[in-house]
Amino acid sequence: MTAPIYLDCDTGIDDALALAYLLASPLASLVGVGTVSGNVSAAVGARNTLDLLSLAGAASVPVAVGAHDPLVGSFHGGAPWVHGSNGIGEVSLAPAAASLAAESAAEMLVRLAHTYPGALRVVAIGPLTNIAEALRLEPALPSLVESVTVMGGAALAPGNITPVAEANIWHDPEAAALVLAADWDVTLVPLDVTMTSVLEESHRQVLLSSAAPVPRALGEMLGYYFRFYEDIYGRPCSAMHDPLAAALAVGAVKPALAPVVRAAVDTSDGPGRGQTVCDMRGLYVGYPEVKAARCRVVLSLEEDFAPHLVEMLLNHFEGTTAAVEPSETKAVPIAAA
Amino acid sequence: MTAPIYLDCDTGIDDALALAYLLASPLASLVGVGTVSGNVSAAVGARNTLDLLSLAGAASVPVAVGAHDPLVGSFHGGAPWVHGSNGIGEVSLAPAAASLAAESAAEMLVRLAHTYPGALRVVAIGPLTNIAEALRLEPALPSLVESVTVMGGAALAPGNITPVAEANIWHDPEAAALVLAADWDVTLVPLDVTMTSVLEESHRQVLLSSAAPVPRALGEMLGYYFRFYEDIYGRPCSAMHDPLAAALAVGAVKPALAPVVRAAVDTSDGPGRGQTVCDMRGLYVGYPEVKAARCRVVLSLEEDFAPHLVEMLLNHFEGTTAAVEPSETKAVPIAAA
Repeated sequence: MTAPIYLDCDTGIDDALALAYLLASPLASLVGVGTVSGNVSAAVGARNTLDLLSLAGAASVPVAVGAHDPLVGSFHGGAPWVHGSNGIGEVSLAPAAASLAAESAAEMLVRLAHTYPGALRVVAIGPLTNIAEALRLEPALPSLVESVTVMGGAALAPGNITPVAEANIWHDPEAAALVLAADWDVTLVPLDVTMTSVLEESHRQVLLSSAAPVPRALGEMLGYYFRFYEDIYGRPCSAMHDPLAAALAVGAVKPALAPVVRAAVDTSDGPGRGQTVCDMRGLYVGYPEVKAARCRVVLSLEEDFAPHLVEMLLNHFEGTTAAVEPSETKAVPIAAA
Repeated sequence: MTAPIYLDCDTGIDDALALAYLLASPLASLVGVGTVSGNVSAAVGARNTLDLLSLAGAASVPVAVGAHDPLVGSFHGGAPWVHGSNGIGEVSLAPAAASLAAESAAEMLVRLAHTYPGALRVVAIGPLTNIAEALRLEPALPSLVESVTVMGGAALAPGNITPVAEANIWHDPEAAALVLAADWDVTLVPLDVTMTSVLEESHRQVLLSSAAPVPRALGEMLGYYFRFYEDIYGRPCSAMHDPLAAALAVGAVKPALAPVVRAAVDTSDGPGRGQTVCDMRGLYVGYPEVKAARCRVVLSLEEDFAPHLVEMLLNHFEGTTAAVEPSETKAVPIAAA
């Protein structure tokens, strides 16, 4: 049983890992990808996504460009110091032959929700602009999709853009507020669990020494990402934000602690702007059930995620290297190899 | 060496414990108490303080009434479901003969800061209205006092009034913002450490079985307090907010982890109003030194606080019972004894 997945992303190094993970997972069938401005612009993110899909031999997955600007204000310009000027750690991928979908990301999500009624899983690993737009286009969206998993926010952990705000939510708080307030249950994969799910240099070396181009390219990108995170962790390694959300969405990874709580997004102009205000006051008695609460906040995992991620990527891409078209694999100049 | 202490409080059950602790500590000399609206009104808090001081044989400590209303808006009416309708868990104390000081709490603080230049320790365990007012009355206050210790806020722990706001800060965010922005170092004793410093029923029984009236009265009050906290902890016990701040201020209890970070108070009207926005992003590398940071956030203690608190109260009050004037001790009708 594979679940149809719509991925909304801002590719992005850890987005690239999530994309590769969803292609690799036997539990997932990636039926569409939409992009949004965040780590990079929606247009650059779409280009990166096409190139990665092509490298992975999955050029048939449709990619739609989504919102360039958040619901309020305009795109801030991305995070080149985290993801590189091209969003994928200055790694050069062969330009894909495939072109972008004619529809917008929000339109794609609505279309796929109707194509797979009750089955589509939405995995949102960028700012939530497209998801909010899709809710506006199709008010019945909550009853059409199977689940919504969002990488974003911080419940009890510190933020990563401000002391309390995480990047995806901070980039479009108004959209995040609409998504959390909609008539569906949302699984939030916040910094609490993504910052404690760490990919180490030893894992990166395994990817780099792979015979397959996709793991090698991801290993190269992670070199850039690790340099950013060295200041945060004190060693070369990285958080695994986006692929963890993907793995939780497909059910390959199980939460150990994931209370369902009330949650709202701070859309004020105060110092809390962009914070996911999660009501964690049940902490001291193991989070009893809360009436009308709809936000499942993943706080910890049953098992360490990084070994699973690396294993899935190697199993899939080393096994399918032969299936990748020569024109796509031979032309991959991996930066600083 | 005893340190002169100005206590600013809203007495309140845990305020009563802090007051008794400061009278009991050989490291402290309580030179004045000001009250502010919070758990109860400033006037009721002052009455409770006078009665407790009288019961403790310390009627000579001056008590000044402070601000009834926060800097913005008006007093919300207190928390009788936590502290009882009289603020001290429905325990009846003999009315003290002593009267209130003619000065306001803020005026008292300024006067004491000049009386003990460079030595006065400010222990603020209620909303920060009086401290903000004192800063306005005497802009040189930061250079006059030895230290400022505030019970309040939540750094990474949940709030207790809203998901992110702690009661003392939430009651007067504008005052708290002024206090944290003033030209002094502040030690914040937030819910992170006070909620994990728990007084158990066994400790309460020790206080109740004391031969001295002050520990007995405190044990009675705690019966009320424990009932409130039973929903939060799942057993009869309580957090030790205010006495812990007092013990940290006098140096009797040492923090195990207390990073100095930048901190601001959310004074917006958003869902973060009243939050202490502490920048805890150094978490993953053990909180390196932050330039210009002035807020020391106590996160954990070297040793469990409750045994120390009970021991100090018994040592002092059982040893000094004879010194309590008969008229003050005999008349104590402890409720539901």
